[in-house]
Amino acid sequence: MNLHAAAGTGNAMGALTNAVVAHSPLVITAGQQVRDQVGAEVMLANVGAPELARPLVKWSAEPLAARDVPRSISQAAHLAALAPAGPVYVSVPYDDWAQDAGAAAAHLAARHTSTAGGLPPETLAELVAALDTARSPVLVLGPDVDTAQVRAGAEIGVVQLAERLSAPVWIAPSASRCPFPTRHPAFRGVLPASIAGIARAVAGHDLVVVIGAPVFRYHQYEPGDYLPEGTRLLHITCDPGEAARAPMGDAIVADIGQAVRALSDAVAPAARPAPDPRDLPPVPDDDGSGRLDPATVLAAVAQGAPHDAIFVKESTSTTAMVFDHLDLTLPGSYYFPAAGGLGFGLPAAVGVQLAQPGRRVVALVGDGSANYGITALWTAAQHRVPVVFVILNNGTYAALRSFVNHMGVSGTPGIDIPGIDFVALAQGYGVSARRVSDVGQLREALAEALASEAPTLIEVPTTPTDPLAP
Amino acid sequence: MNLHAAAGTGNAMGALTNAVVAHSPLVITAGQQVRDQVGAEVMLANVGAPELARPLVKWSAEPLAARDVPRSISQAAHLAALAPAGPVYVSVPYDDWAQDAGAAAAHLAARHTSTAGGLPPETLAELVAALDTARSPVLVLGPDVDTAQVRAGAEIGVVQLAERLSAPVWIAPSASRCPFPTRHPAFRGVLPASIAGIARAVAGHDLVVVIGAPVFRYHQYEPGDYLPEGTRLLHITCDPGEAARAPMGDAIVADIGQAVRALSDAVAPAARPAPDPRDLPPVPDDDGSGRLDPATVLAAVAQGAPHDAIFVKESTSTTAMVFDHLDLTLPGSYYFPAAGGLGFGLPAAVGVQLAQPGRRVVALVGDGSANYGITALWTAAQHRVPVVFVILNNGTYAALRSFVNHMGVSGTPGIDIPGIDFVALAQGYGVSARRVSDVGQLREALAEALASEAPTLIEVPTTPTDPLAP
Amino acid sequence: MNLHAAAGTGNAMGALTNAVVAHSPLVITAGQQVRDQVGAEVMLANVGAPELARPLVKWSAEPLAARDVPRSISQAAHLAALAPAGPVYVSVPYDDWAQDAGAAAAHLAARHTSTAGGLPPETLAELVAALDTARSPVLVLGPDVDTAQVRAGAEIGVVQLAERLSAPVWIAPSASRCPFPTRHPAFRGVLPASIAGIARAVAGHDLVVVIGAPVFRYHQYEPGDYLPEGTRLLHITCDPGEAARAPMGDAIVADIGQAVRALSDAVAPAARPAPDPRDLPPVPDDDGSGRLDPATVLAAVAQGAPHDAIFVKESTSTTAMVFDHLDLTLPGSYYFPAAGGLGFGLPAAVGVQLAQPGRRVVALVGDGSANYGITALWTAAQHRVPVVFVILNNGTYAALRSFVNHMGVSGTPGIDIPGIDFVALAQGYGVSARRVSDVGQLREALAEALASEAPTLIEVPTTPTDPLAP
Amino acid sequence: MNLHAAAGTGNAMGALTNAVVAHSPLVITAGQQVRDQVGAEVMLANVGAPELARPLVKWSAEPLAARDVPRSISQAAHLAALAPAGPVYVSVPYDDWAQDAGAAAAHLAARHTSTAGGLPPETLAELVAALDTARSPVLVLGPDVDTAQVRAGAEIGVVQLAERLSAPVWIAPSASRCPFPTRHPAFRGVLPASIAGIARAVAGHDLVVVIGAPVFRYHQYEPGDYLPEGTRLLHITCDPGEAARAPMGDAIVADIGQAVRALSDAVAPAARPAPDPRDLPPVPDDDGSGRLDPATVLAAVAQGAPHDAIFVKESTSTTAMVFDHLDLTLPGSYYFPAAGGLGFGLPAAVGVQLAQPGRRVVALVGDGSANYGITALWTAAQHRVPVVFVILNNGTYAALRSFVNHMGVSGTPGIDIPGIDFVALAQGYGVSARRVSDVGQLREALAEALASEAPTLIEVPTTPTDPLAP
Repeated sequence: MNLHAAAGTGNAMGALTNAVVAHSPLVITAGQQVRDQVGAEVMLANVGAPELARPLVKWSAEPLAARDVPRSISQAAHLAALAPAGPVYVSVPYDDWAQDAGAAAAHLAARHTSTAGGLPPETLAELVAALDTARSPVLVLGPDVDTAQVRAGAEIGVVQLAERLSAPVWIAPSASRCPFPTRHPAFRGVLPASIAGIARAVAGHDLVVVIGAPVFRYHQYEPGDYLPEGTRLLHITCDPGEAARAPMGDAIVADIGQAVRALSDAVAPAARPAPDPRDLPPVPDDDGSGRLDPATVLAAVAQGAPHDAIFVKESTSTTAMVFDHLDLTLPGSYYFPAAGGLGFGLPAAVGVQLAQPGRRVVALVGDGSANYGITALWTAAQHRVPVVFVILNNGTYAALRSFVNHMGVSGTPGIDIPGIDFVALAQGYGVSARRVSDVGQLREALAEALASEAPTLIEVPTTPTDPLAP
Repeated sequence: MNLHAAAGTGNAMGALTNAVVAHSPLVITAGQQVRDQVGAEVMLANVGAPELARPLVKWSAEPLAARDVPRSISQAAHLAALAPAGPVYVSVPYDDWAQDAGAAAAHLAARHTSTAGGLPPETLAELVAALDTARSPVLVLGPDVDTAQVRAGAEIGVVQLAERLSAPVWIAPSASRCPFPTRHPAFRGVLPASIAGIARAVAGHDLVVVIGAPVFRYHQYEPGDYLPEGTRLLHITCDPGEAARAPMGDAIVADIGQAVRALSDAVAPAARPAPDPRDLPPVPDDDGSGRLDPATVLAAVAQGAPHDAIFVKESTSTTAMVFDHLDLTLPGSYYFPAAGGLGFGLPAAVGVQLAQPGRRVVALVGDGSANYGITALWTAAQHRVPVVFVILNNGTYAALRSFVNHMGVSGTPGIDIPGIDFVALAQGYGVSARRVSDVGQLREALAEALASEAPTLIEVPTTPTDPLAP
Repeated sequence: MNLHAAAGTGNAMGALTNAVVAHSPLVITAGQQVRDQVGAEVMLANVGAPELARPLVKWSAEPLAARDVPRSISQAAHLAALAPAGPVYVSVPYDDWAQDAGAAAAHLAARHTSTAGGLPPETLAELVAALDTARSPVLVLGPDVDTAQVRAGAEIGVVQLAERLSAPVWIAPSASRCPFPTRHPAFRGVLPASIAGIARAVAGHDLVVVIGAPVFRYHQYEPGDYLPEGTRLLHITCDPGEAARAPMGDAIVADIGQAVRALSDAVAPAARPAPDPRDLPPVPDDDGSGRLDPATVLAAVAQGAPHDAIFVKESTSTTAMVFDHLDLTLPGSYYFPAAGGLGFGLPAAVGVQLAQPGRRVVALVGDGSANYGITALWTAAQHRVPVVFVILNNGTYAALRSFVNHMGVSGTPGIDIPGIDFVALAQGYGVSARRVSDVGQLREALAEALASEAPTLIEVPTTPTDPLAP
Repeated sequence: MNLHAAAGTGNAMGALTNAVVAHSPLVITAGQQVRDQVGAEVMLANVGAPELARPLVKWSAEPLAARDVPRSISQAAHLAALAPAGPVYVSVPYDDWAQDAGAAAAHLAARHTSTAGGLPPETLAELVAALDTARSPVLVLGPDVDTAQVRAGAEIGVVQLAERLSAPVWIAPSASRCPFPTRHPAFRGVLPASIAGIARAVAGHDLVVVIGAPVFRYHQYEPGDYLPEGTRLLHITCDPGEAARAPMGDAIVADIGQAVRALSDAVAPAARPAPDPRDLPPVPDDDGSGRLDPATVLAAVAQGAPHDAIFVKESTSTTAMVFDHLDLTLPGSYYFPAAGGLGFGLPAAVGVQLAQPGRRVVALVGDGSANYGITALWTAAQHRVPVVFVILNNGTYAALRSFVNHMGVSGTPGIDIPGIDFVALAQGYGVSARRVSDVGQLREALAEALASEAPTLIEVPTTPTDPLAP
């Protein structure tokens, strides 16, 4: 990604909060004024450029000479991708582009770097022993598991690991990816995002194995003991920072793929029965009011979307619900802003669709969220990126409203979002759009959208939900 | 301003580039997770909060204890306003709001701070001597002069100073405010924004007096000598940083208002004749093509707008033109993004209109710029902020196109902006809107908008201009 | 000052803590590797150089091009000296020194910058009214008052101000300079360094006027109300940061010299009687034990030293005592580490002596402190800098011991300092040295040292003191 | 390590330059004022504490609440040790020590973290293939190889790897540890520290395998191609930063021990003949002048020291020489300041001796270097740490003198170091000391020192050397 000096960098920094938490291997270059004019703070100088992007990048630099620009960009690219992956930032002064790269640059183009994160035999043996002797292990999987190599079911991967262990599987809290097939009988949904909530959820298990997630990305503050008495936690992560900062458990920094493959191959099939599938909540009927329950929307979308659809979601009040209603069997089927930084949904949907032309992207975005990044519709129209944008319009910041209610506060300003006509906005940017008021219209609009090769927006009036309700 | 933790801060950082350069005394507080959960990087934790806002703020902090929050916010408020004013940032953890402020907080509410920046007698005498003995002095005024106290004409102020000196007056380059009446015969417009360009513009003057601006905020790079041979430069600024980093001239850090009042009172009336008014370019006629020349738009707006209208402008390809066509006699009549950070125009217009309910704000915003901050229209509609939004839609980033042409580059991507219907967008946000295609319709639409108590958007198709043309 | 890349900068950073608090206008340049090798982190590269010196400097930079080095060093020099003065840091790559400075550098050599910090008439009138109508004002003076212009007695200055007001005068706590003649009858010594202690000390006064100090640089934590009920505090400082962060009182950022001269000239002579001189503690007799009380040492030194001697002191357990026993009538007579950063005494004594060849410097340094910067003796010897180094050797970190005792802790390690022979160390560096064991020998050694044109060290075994004793 | 707030941290920062480059797993805690007093900048407050230690630490933090202090220190300890190891910094406010740690702290004490850096099978196979098919491979080993597990000879390790490959072995430039037995016939000494110098040294080899070092820590700037035409470079490192920033070659981030063991086990024994031992320079005779050649000193020390002696060296002008004359067969036998930050030798010798009570430490320190950390002698005396301090006193900064000569500069100030009597200094600190003037006295003094259980200093007048001589 290339950004425009200080202001362009500034405009991108909200989105960077998600990128850094998501371990996105993103190389950012930024424009800069002419080298000898920056210190005088001329117009568009990015004074203190390397400092600007911090702490939202892994690494940030501005080469001291044009001759070091090629090596610096090479360093950025390698560093972004090496474990743990993340965004990096390089500021390049304007006049450097007219300089010769020098003969040494040829070495850079040929470079290859990689991380060897294999479990040593003794570590593998210890982990296998812990899993084989556990009375009741449970798996907690995080976003770094959501890759084709690791999720694969029939082959070696987390599905086989769960099946061999006869263990239930949760998604780590504040889930930004879906690391396990949501229709699998062992699947238990997403963990609650509080200290006490997680301890309650894993009660009864003597061993919690967390793979590919921090321990844990709590959200609401409900203190308590971090683990039930007598429960052990093992943590496999690609990120030394996650390993070091966790408040409990033993951690191994490893390549997730190598570790999962080795474990799923080495653990003994458990004698215990496989977990029963969980009971899912019923899908509410369309009550004819013109507003649909979000669960009804999700169920209709799940039914109408192709099996390999990708869901980019930014509807913060329905976070847990998607894992009940969507079929997320394939890897890379679900994206949510990893740091909760709003404005993610519309542009990320466009980006994922560009990256995955062979699958269809459905964006499920709340009205509050959509407004942060509305101009992504223009990009979709201009480049004919065939995203199906579903706007769940409940006219409020329902997640905030829920917090406000639970805290007993009254008169909170700024949580209503009246008066936005997303159909008009879409048309202003050249995207076909339609508002639907019952589930039949929704199904019809969805089918039309999927039949089109152009982007389409469907605005669905929805009823507010309370994500903190028990 | 209160921002939401890291992502909210990130979203604001593009705008902060303008605020810091504009010396805006802005106190920003930011949300933060529960104190003892931040280090573990839970969801929405702003890890390294004070570092995040740098280097775009004067000061950034996160109090180490709830008990120090009141004093820290007090410190922020005083520091933001003390010379040189600027934005400051304080991160306040969630749980602090439930703590008692302590008895010491009573002292804080009563505090008053100020800066004594008066010229000592010997300094004043030296400056007056330099001005009185100059053969041909010229004044260059910057944004920090644009206050009621300093600009005042009949009384003591820069107008009297210019008249006593019989000196021409320029605006410093990259002008974000208008510090002098544009209809005054001594007014010469805005200086070009290059080293050689300024040297050419002040050639023939033996003394350049710069007040309330950096020396200088160059933009395009055209090297040369910083000053003509034999020309002296004196610089009066409220900002020690500006004083220290200038490449030439003598600088005095002072209170602009006190300094201007003292100087305008003390200089002797010059014997030379007053400068003649400059020749202004003619206003192009409407050629009936359905697209208007921006100068035609500006002239029509100048004619139709009330005498005390405030213009918030973000049309980067017509920067110099506004000082030819708009009557900016009153202080506080003109606002442009100080750092060139786009996305300023629409939200700033709403903000200025809220701050100045007794004057009418006209936003003059290019299509490229408007799209960065389009949601400001929703705020205007919801709060019935009666800005007249004039969108100069030339379908291109004309400033970039101009650079590209002058550099002889072909095939540059991303500089066209086709397919945006601003009328539809405005309607999507609840703002009345109309597209006009000739100057008569423009005058009519403007009159209607000014007669309304609600916000209105007028989209005007315009012809591209070349700001780098000689 | 020029430092060697990262390690040299690191070695200086302890001392920088004092420099930044002392408002020392210090320009630091640092070596750096060849420009295009720094990013690759070759040996002696200072990676992230501008960040290294922070937050202990006002400003830190590394020019992006050789051509901007002259302007950057100019910026550094001006910024260091502009109010509030402080250290600045510029990293200069190795290969830049071989480049041509360019024609623009000629402008830099001619630049002059200054700060106009005069009180505007209305502010002066308000201050004078407050002083004239106060029932019982008290002055608290800080290190920024300790300049020749401000302290002057018979003329306009703080002495005249105190005399006209008939007000007692304290030194602000944690005093690093002496801003008032210690033999003047109005002088009251140094304020205690705790919240409650200061409130007790100023009880009975309705107006506290603090000039040239932060409000306040507390040290030990004894909470309480910041001011007695009904007492007002006015604060005149050269530092906006000090003004903004104070927990109470009204503050004016001004040039200290201009403000004091204006006030001392404008206040009306008070009708109240002048304050009586305070009672000073007696000087303990030499008890013949071979160890002297520090007060005895100070009294003997005060008696033997020339009237214009300069005392550089770093004996943290005798901080208050010096203002009882030393005659500090002239400006610039006393230097103490402003941030309490040890290692200051010996090198600062050498530096002050080099800066003031016409006055004689006596260093009064504790054994614990001396050891931090012992190599300064070598510099003194090599350059024949005629400092009289008096080492008060009580064999302990008495300030720490005092804290430990008051906190009731036992068995604290590391607070004894046995087994250092300062006479041998001095001889190892080529400085004449002598150990004395009674007051007669001390007087004799002092006379000899003052008669010599070379540096001399006098080691005096002393008894430990308890600076926290009531 | 615990440091005293800002000044204590500042004093340590020179040494931190070495620690960070050396991958030293160092947990630094720092004192801080009372939480709610820091913002007001009271005496000894460490304002901006986390920023102060940067960029010389891997991680720096100040917990936002007392309750997060235990987890923060736990995080620091784990992060310091996880690959790549390095120093970390935690500031802990004064009042936190009186708070209860909370029940959650029990989890922290039980935590264990580790890094799984094993080579995956396909990576191992590729490396082995490259080594097995190389015509003439060469090994370059760095400081991270210098551990017992990796260096071991008869067993699996770098010695076996070198022997199986019949490859010569160099030490990477700017060597801070010794990773290979200096008496082994395959050993070639330390690579020169310039781009062109290394290319010359590896000319003729088709494969360069660098293990446990950056590629490369150049020092003097002699540009050229980074590698001979047709030479491939493979790099195995524990540090992603080293992998990413290298200007050439392919890199694998791995656990050095696991990688070396896997490789030495898997490569096929080469058919080529083993490298012949290199010719070593002769040891100069004592010429009776009273000054010894440093090589004569090293040879005498090598002969007199026990076989398992540890050498801590800081004589920058004899860097290459030690690998000719010292027998460094055992792991952990050699320590040099990794960043070239002077002041390392004396204190590091004390530290290593405390850590290795079963082996005898000999410090080989130049006079210029010794003076930076002279007070370490006092620590040695007080704790009876039996280091043998050998001061090579040539009266000059010979490394600088050498640079100055090669650059053809005359009149450079500050490179002579006359007039220091190290025997007197040692005695001042309570360390037995002796000056020797011929090789017989040196042998005798060394034998006496080694026979003593207390520290001893031997000052040896030496002749200056020219490390840049061909």
